[in-house]
Amino acid sequence: MNDSRCAPIGVFDSGIGGLSILRALRDRLPDERFIYLGDTARLPYGTRGDDTIIRYSHECARFLIRHGAKMIVGACNTASSIAGDFLAANLPVPFVGTVEPSVSCVLRAAVSRSLWILGTEGTVRSGSYQKRLRSHLPSSCRIEALACPLFVPLAEEGLTDGAVCDAVMDLYLAPVRASAPEAVLLACTHYPLLAQAISSYLGPTTIVLDGSIAVAEAVKESLSLINEQANGANHNDNRRGSLTCLVTDGAPRVNRLAERFLGESQLQVSVVSIDNEEQ
Amino acid sequence: MNDSRCAPIGVFDSGIGGLSILRALRDRLPDERFIYLGDTARLPYGTRGDDTIIRYSHECARFLIRHGAKMIVGACNTASSIAGDFLAANLPVPFVGTVEPSVSCVLRAAVSRSLWILGTEGTVRSGSYQKRLRSHLPSSCRIEALACPLFVPLAEEGLTDGAVCDAVMDLYLAPVRASAPEAVLLACTHYPLLAQAISSYLGPTTIVLDGSIAVAEAVKESLSLINEQANGANHNDNRRGSLTCLVTDGAPRVNRLAERFLGESQLQVSVVSIDNEEQ
Repeated sequence: MNDSRCAPIGVFDSGIGGLSILRALRDRLPDERFIYLGDTARLPYGTRGDDTIIRYSHECARFLIRHGAKMIVGACNTASSIAGDFLAANLPVPFVGTVEPSVSCVLRAAVSRSLWILGTEGTVRSGSYQKRLRSHLPSSCRIEALACPLFVPLAEEGLTDGAVCDAVMDLYLAPVRASAPEAVLLACTHYPLLAQAISSYLGPTTIVLDGSIAVAEAVKESLSLINEQANGANHNDNRRGSLTCLVTDGAPRVNRLAERFLGESQLQVSVVSIDNEEQ
Repeated sequence: MNDSRCAPIGVFDSGIGGLSILRALRDRLPDERFIYLGDTARLPYGTRGDDTIIRYSHECARFLIRHGAKMIVGACNTASSIAGDFLAANLPVPFVGTVEPSVSCVLRAAVSRSLWILGTEGTVRSGSYQKRLRSHLPSSCRIEALACPLFVPLAEEGLTDGAVCDAVMDLYLAPVRASAPEAVLLACTHYPLLAQAISSYLGPTTIVLDGSIAVAEAVKESLSLINEQANGANHNDNRRGSLTCLVTDGAPRVNRLAERFLGESQLQVSVVSIDNEEQ
């Protein structure tokens, strides 16, 4: 029992976008140990073929399990959409992706009339969100999905307002705004950094739903089943937990981006190889 | 001799940007066989660490040599800037990168007063262009280098004009235009797709230099040394040569992008693995 409590929660993403989910996790589970793996040497997953996405995701998860992870969080919408079912069925520890928690988030918001799902090309193409939401939402509810490929470089370059941001919002979201939807779901870990810009563009009648908090809540729930995680966990900043942050390629920009996404300064990011240590 | 004439020229890039150079090569060497390798499974190189860029580039070059290439063209400014010296010294066949031909292109344009080099973060950080140009240009010539990270997604999304393109031009090129330079060098294979927009923004007093033609001329010259390439090669469309186009990951967008960059329709793109066939 004690071992299980001490074992870390493994969180992976194709890059540093998943740190927005880790941020929500650290906030809700301050006493947990986390090990984060950003597969920066092979990002982005969003433009890759399905077989490649499944292979890469499985390699990341196995790496984290070899490093003691008691649970795997797929903090990458592309990986969760395309490899989520495979990982849930094949890993020896519980897997939490982004899809089911985001679906729950939409249902809790009682969306009934119209919803747009915004994500990468891979996430939209997979149809994972559309299929799962279709089976839960009223049949009269209109569900649309839209890829916004420039949102990722915009978030990474910190262009979250200003002329370029405004022009990109208009490029992708003009048809969304024209349809006056009840809600949009941000189905990419990079998009929360643009939540304010998206909300401003769409106006106050459209709810902007960010799945990262839903993922953190789902992890907390799943965790309580495997190690009786204290129900009254501290929600303050007296963190007794820890964070190990690993990436597969350490270009100079990774540290800068990691601090922007995680919201923690002085972050120590180490470079590891996940290729060469398979049994 | 006949074997050498029949052997293909190997061209590699981290993705499909290098097809802009292949296009210039096919135009100038219509009778040659080409084998192109786009390492799409591991793109982009521009945001990776130097060691990784050298390792990936070497793997691409060795793959092409195993497939009979008599010469390697590094059609990737990041790979050429960072791995060019290593490849030139370590490959068993001649290597042509993008740096030296681009430098020649600047010198032929007789730039003497001021030049801006536009490239990815990796190319600019490497300082390759700056160092080589510094040693050739008059000491009074001002040389600046600028990373324009959004140019790549702009080119790939086909946003080569319109409001987003205008805003991005203004974001990066306002200080360039304010300095009224004699010339800018497009030191990234994606940027030629934006040449018109860049030229329009900077105005008629600034020359926009595109290195892809210079690379093709350098390859032609190097080739004549190794296989007495016919001096009077056909410059028309009666191509007797051939093209094999390979990528390491075949997401659906690759074919669409490849046709956009190469300017040839009905392109057959095959997916290969370069990991698993090392001796």
